Amino acid sequence: MSQNLPLHTQLYDAMIQRIRSGAWKEGDRVPSEKSLVAEFGTSRGPVRQALASLRAEGMIVGGRGAPPRVQRTVPAQSFDTFLSFTEWARSIDRSPGQRVIEASRRPATEEIARELGIAPDEAVVEVIRLRLLDGEPAMIERSVHPFWVGRHLLAADLDGGSIYQTLLALHIAPVRARHVIDAVAAHPLDAEWLGVAAGSPLLRARRVTRDEHGGVIESADDRYLPSMTTFVIENTAEHRIPLTREPA
Amino acid sequence: MSQNLPLHTQLYDAMIQRIRSGAWKEGDRVPSEKSLVAEFGTSRGPVRQALASLRAEGMIVGGRGAPPRVQRTVPAQSFDTFLSFTEWARSIDRSPGQRVIEASRRPATEEIARELGIAPDEAVVEVIRLRLLDGEPAMIERSVHPFWVGRHLLAADLDGGSIYQTLLALHIAPVRARHVIDAVAAHPLDAEWLGVAAGSPLLRARRVTRDEHGGVIESADDRYLPSMTTFVIENTAEHRIPLTREPA
Repeated sequence: MSQNLPLHTQLYDAMIQRIRSGAWKEGDRVPSEKSLVAEFGTSRGPVRQALASLRAEGMIVGGRGAPPRVQRTVPAQSFDTFLSFTEWARSIDRSPGQRVIEASRRPATEEIARELGIAPDEAVVEVIRLRLLDGEPAMIERSVHPFWVGRHLLAADLDGGSIYQTLLALHIAPVRARHVIDAVAAHPLDAEWLGVAAGSPLLRARRVTRDEHGGVIESADDRYLPSMTTFVIENTAEHRIPLTREPA
Repeated sequence: MSQNLPLHTQLYDAMIQRIRSGAWKEGDRVPSEKSLVAEFGTSRGPVRQALASLRAEGMIVGGRGAPPRVQRTVPAQSFDTFLSFTEWARSIDRSPGQRVIEASRRPATEEIARELGIAPDEAVVEVIRLRLLDGEPAMIERSVHPFWVGRHLLAADLDGGSIYQTLLALHIAPVRARHVIDAVAAHPLDAEWLGVAAGSPLLRARRVTRDEHGGVIESADDRYLPSMTTFVIENTAEHRIPLTREPA
């Protein structure tokens, strides 16, 4: 173990590693303090501190009567992995893919103008792509960008890669996103691209993404085949997360 | 303002109140430090501290060239309001309602036993209810409970109120939940209850809820009319939240 970190942090890291690797399995009893002290060759204090941290994060549950047990929690996905289909697919060792259906420049409708915070009739760039996981259709992605962002995309190789990476390379960095999740019936054209019957239920995630100045760089509408993707959220009584159920 | 809180906290509270009430509107420029100092009759330090807190929480964006602007963020919904349909409806000034479709005791299937962490064939209690918002069908709620929890529900007035409140009164307190969100086509019976065509897209939220000891007290499957309810999530590059996109 590294000598640079406090002992309880080193123990915490070692225990997290055991939970992540499955060496300590979900539902297993956590080894006793005594056996951990013996195994790690430390005093009781740092072991207790490490266990308390795991408990505070919900990775150990029980106690007060019930024996403490291991609990795997939903990991917090990094912002870029959650935002970028390409990054996400790679993070789960799947191969991301895309086919551009349409990339166009046109005047903003009133609704789009309101969403992007621009004047109606200002130019926007819309990109529609079919996204693939290991070569299988998984999602129809529609994103609309103000022209100062979108003009870079019209010039980019959208068949080859990630819009997210393209923007990052231009120092256009998303730092905040609001996601509205619901369900819709597949339009006939989307259904054809996704290889399902028209009217099939799709999981829809609409997203407004902002840069560090609060400017909207993207308004997106992603429609997933629910057989390919779900969203997983974990919340607890102690830790509030920015999550609401809202009337449609 | 209360004399008991530090000045910067009082200023922060006052500013939050203005954003929540809409007195400071989304997209508005934040008043200058100078004008806030004059208005609140304080020194510059506490005003700066209050503004820095709002900025850290993403309620003010911009700066570094761009003028600071007001940003409304998705509030973190409290754990109980997110979990309980009844609490949620009340929190948005809507009237919650329910009709019990079925409440039954039966042996656990293998799948349910695995989810609840009990032996197959142990007794479980399943409750199926139609949930209403202002008298309109909004969701079909199916929840399965281990018998030590569910036996209380068989005896309760499920037409009259909240399962959540019933359990709390018995000191069975949910403290952690994992939600898996996707989309499904409405079964003919669900469609009839919800008043839509069979096959219509529904927003599904499956949930496993645990008490303080890590024991599962509920496995639920809620199917929402997307015209009535959405889920809203906000994430930022700085603050990770327990949210992932997962392969189905």
